Amino acid sequence: MKKSLIALAALAASGAAMAQSSVTLFGVADATFAYGTGTVSKKTQLASGGLDGSRLGFRGVEDLGGGMSASFHLEAGLNNDDGTGGTTDTNNQGKAASGGLIFNRRSTLSLNGGFGEVRLGRDYTPHFKNLTAFDPFGTSGVGTTQTLKSSIGGPTTIRASNSIGYLLPGNLGGFYGQGQFYMGENDSNVANKKDGNGVSLRAGYANGPIDVAGAFAKTTYLLNTANGTGGNITTMNFGGKYDLGMVKILGQYSQDKVIGTGTGKGLLGGVQIPVGPAGEVRLSFSTYKVVTVGVNTPDPATNKIAAGYVHNLSKRTAVYGTFANVTNKKGAEQALNNSKTAPNKKSSGFDFGIRHSF
Amino acid sequence: MKKSLIALAALAASGAAMAQSSVTLFGVADATFAYGTGTVSKKTQLASGGLDGSRLGFRGVEDLGGGMSASFHLEAGLNNDDGTGGTTDTNNQGKAASGGLIFNRRSTLSLNGGFGEVRLGRDYTPHFKNLTAFDPFGTSGVGTTQTLKSSIGGPTTIRASNSIGYLLPGNLGGFYGQGQFYMGENDSNVANKKDGNGVSLRAGYANGPIDVAGAFAKTTYLLNTANGTGGNITTMNFGGKYDLGMVKILGQYSQDKVIGTGTGKGLLGGVQIPVGPAGEVRLSFSTYKVVTVGVNTPDPATNKIAAGYVHNLSKRTAVYGTFANVTNKKGAEQALNNSKTAPNKKSSGFDFGIRHSF
Amino acid sequence: MKKSLIALAALAASGAAMAQSSVTLFGVADATFAYGTGTVSKKTQLASGGLDGSRLGFRGVEDLGGGMSASFHLEAGLNNDDGTGGTTDTNNQGKAASGGLIFNRRSTLSLNGGFGEVRLGRDYTPHFKNLTAFDPFGTSGVGTTQTLKSSIGGPTTIRASNSIGYLLPGNLGGFYGQGQFYMGENDSNVANKKDGNGVSLRAGYANGPIDVAGAFAKTTYLLNTANGTGGNITTMNFGGKYDLGMVKILGQYSQDKVIGTGTGKGLLGGVQIPVGPAGEVRLSFSTYKVVTVGVNTPDPATNKIAAGYVHNLSKRTAVYGTFANVTNKKGAEQALNNSKTAPNKKSSGFDFGIRHSF
Repeated sequence: MKKSLIALAALAASGAAMAQSSVTLFGVADATFAYGTGTVSKKTQLASGGLDGSRLGFRGVEDLGGGMSASFHLEAGLNNDDGTGGTTDTNNQGKAASGGLIFNRRSTLSLNGGFGEVRLGRDYTPHFKNLTAFDPFGTSGVGTTQTLKSSIGGPTTIRASNSIGYLLPGNLGGFYGQGQFYMGENDSNVANKKDGNGVSLRAGYANGPIDVAGAFAKTTYLLNTANGTGGNITTMNFGGKYDLGMVKILGQYSQDKVIGTGTGKGLLGGVQIPVGPAGEVRLSFSTYKVVTVGVNTPDPATNKIAAGYVHNLSKRTAVYGTFANVTNKKGAEQALNNSKTAPNKKSSGFDFGIRHSF
Repeated sequence: MKKSLIALAALAASGAAMAQSSVTLFGVADATFAYGTGTVSKKTQLASGGLDGSRLGFRGVEDLGGGMSASFHLEAGLNNDDGTGGTTDTNNQGKAASGGLIFNRRSTLSLNGGFGEVRLGRDYTPHFKNLTAFDPFGTSGVGTTQTLKSSIGGPTTIRASNSIGYLLPGNLGGFYGQGQFYMGENDSNVANKKDGNGVSLRAGYANGPIDVAGAFAKTTYLLNTANGTGGNITTMNFGGKYDLGMVKILGQYSQDKVIGTGTGKGLLGGVQIPVGPAGEVRLSFSTYKVVTVGVNTPDPATNKIAAGYVHNLSKRTAVYGTFANVTNKKGAEQALNNSKTAPNKKSSGFDFGIRHSF
Repeated sequence: MKKSLIALAALAASGAAMAQSSVTLFGVADATFAYGTGTVSKKTQLASGGLDGSRLGFRGVEDLGGGMSASFHLEAGLNNDDGTGGTTDTNNQGKAASGGLIFNRRSTLSLNGGFGEVRLGRDYTPHFKNLTAFDPFGTSGVGTTQTLKSSIGGPTTIRASNSIGYLLPGNLGGFYGQGQFYMGENDSNVANKKDGNGVSLRAGYANGPIDVAGAFAKTTYLLNTANGTGGNITTMNFGGKYDLGMVKILGQYSQDKVIGTGTGKGLLGGVQIPVGPAGEVRLSFSTYKVVTVGVNTPDPATNKIAAGYVHNLSKRTAVYGTFANVTNKKGAEQALNNSKTAPNKKSSGFDFGIRHSF
């Protein structure tokens, strides 16, 4: 993901010694010709976000003096192919709000200081970060790791609304960490009053060529309620990346346990290989299997291989192509790029697109 | 409400003597931990707008020469906790449009000159301004005056769409005033063709420590139509603020008369007390009672006390805490921060949050 | 339509010899008092876009070196009277998404070079451009050509989502041209799998006082499907403008053939007459007739006359007034400014407004 381009110098009149402040307009426009084929139906699309999710955002930071600062981050997803916005989940129970531009990707207000960062609002969940950080395709496009695509981790697998988070400061010799508490905000006189409440923790170490991290999360859902989220969901995952210079090696393991449903187990191995000054080849194998509750129930599993190439025309603009193929077993019917495939059948797809950051 | 930060110098190529123009990106990010408790249910939330409503806006002004200027103001409400936008009322009859970012807070185009300002679009109604200007809590958060919270003033109590307004110029020795006409835009061949049409007028005087104003408004609604707005609504209110230096005293009286329903009567008294260079204590008592139509009908009434403290970390960033309690009588069931309480029972709540303007 | 005002100088730190890049915030605020009258009902509104459609947009260009550049354009329609956003059509089959701010007007990502421009996303269809370029009122407001207002050209008459377009470079001695392919993105196993797929081509010549162009488009729709678009739609149109200095003369002819429905035929003639340094008078006559399929079926037709005056207060701000009248025949019931009129009856309307670009 590219950094912002426009630092709007502000408050010039407030005196030379005053705090430096900025508001930044940023975004990504990513359009891709996307094709998917399965045994049931094929799909041809102009899609959005094959390399990085299309977005428009506004963020800023104000220096409060004494090493403190306040900052905000408003980031709206958008579909470059038809101009629509994204969806959010206002209660962490799958209650979507969509239709127009909304800051579904991130909407946070922070206080920062030597103590670290307190972050309030809608944000990525910490336990998602290992899935995306240690995926050669960064969980974007047709190559996205199957550990995310098949995940039974529920509504907070990627982001949570109503969160109160804390991030460790950046000067701990490579150690990093984050804790997050989020709320479902139900009335207190209903049976599922705690649905959507949860906690997520992540800790890691990045230094030189190495980056490793683990995460744990638990979200509460009453068993068999109407929202279809099953019962309580417990997620544990860890992963790492090692940069050998001529190749980066990535791997991750994830486990999602849903009371009453089963346990999902995911694994990924992959590489990113620089090609000349501007290119990168990406390869990955990922798999996810759901060990369902009950004797003699099938345990659907899906394997995925993905190969892609990104060519950077500049720091902000890239062209890319990705091919992927999934194999389904024991009743799984995962398909790529909005195609549909019958249980136990294959599906394949490709993206060919342009990504421009601003 | 903080002023904008970023004046984007524009039109540099148009010549030195030319008009000065600017477009400003502005906003507020306000996140608050909000708790409410009533006899029916409690609610714990990460909420938005405890001190000032969260928003994102764009505004600009163009100097037309000869003392004239054109300006626009687009201001969208947003919920910092989940990234969603606000709602508007497209016909002043309660017809909401929501789901994404919309300029529900204000969407106006103005021509300005020595004559004052002609303002077209969606805007605050003049008769709302006395409720917010003379409330120690500025009608934000759990401390908001009960004269607004219980108001039976209908869809245009705060804002109106489709308005044509006129504001007096600012050089009248402290006298200020505003008139506004707004339209419901119904077809002419329906019975309630005039629903949502209205007029609102406000006049005041601000000079040194004193600020007083009064307002009158009438909005047309056909009696007993489906939109539940009752019959014609007539609102009258006045209020004032006096700055004694060590304390600001605020007071207001409001009356909303709805044909077929009854008459609401509201009263508020409060103070704002500076504490050191960066702090402010806010206290208020407010009450609203509905004298319903008909003999032997109860006249529901609610009393509210609120106390808060705002600590400014900078001109743009503040932390704050507010506590409030309501007492219901004669069938009223007002509750705080999305809790619910039974008729004639109490409710209390608090906000604890951060407000950052940009 | 006014150009953008604010070129945000960016990437200052990236070195003097680096690419020039900019992101531009732009828009139009246009508010109009709009009245329409027909035999069934009248309508009085504060409307939006009487001279130019109200909008908010973000666009940028990045120089990639070697004559190449990447650019994006995100443009959201909005209603200045109530702050709402516009609607888009996500599948070119009339499937609307609306409610909040969405980039329904245009949402594109481009690669540009000596070869021309490759443009991906939601954009105007090439075959729409002759209708708007050769209408004295630019297809805005109550004066909009009847060749658009009565058109049976279907969902892609103005814009298409999911489009892949190519535009000729600008250095071809006055010749210009554009091709566009767009997709409905239906599943491959449904009967109407090709619905919303289409192609549109336009070529023209502009040099000195003359500008002429023709276009052809075909969009696929299965006959008698639920979306009400009829069968395949084939559109052909051409038009021109000649600038005599004291008057610009404009004309256009259009034909929309819908399998199973009939053929629409439109014609317009009009003028734009400069009045002093800042004014312009606009006059037009336009007509559209649908030759319906089947013997003894009526062929509804509507004639329109429109007259307007635009007075520019600056390059960005204008006041304007437009009057129009339509005459219906053979069952047509076209009406102006949201009034309604009975079949074969007249309707008239006017706009009186302000347009401010930023």
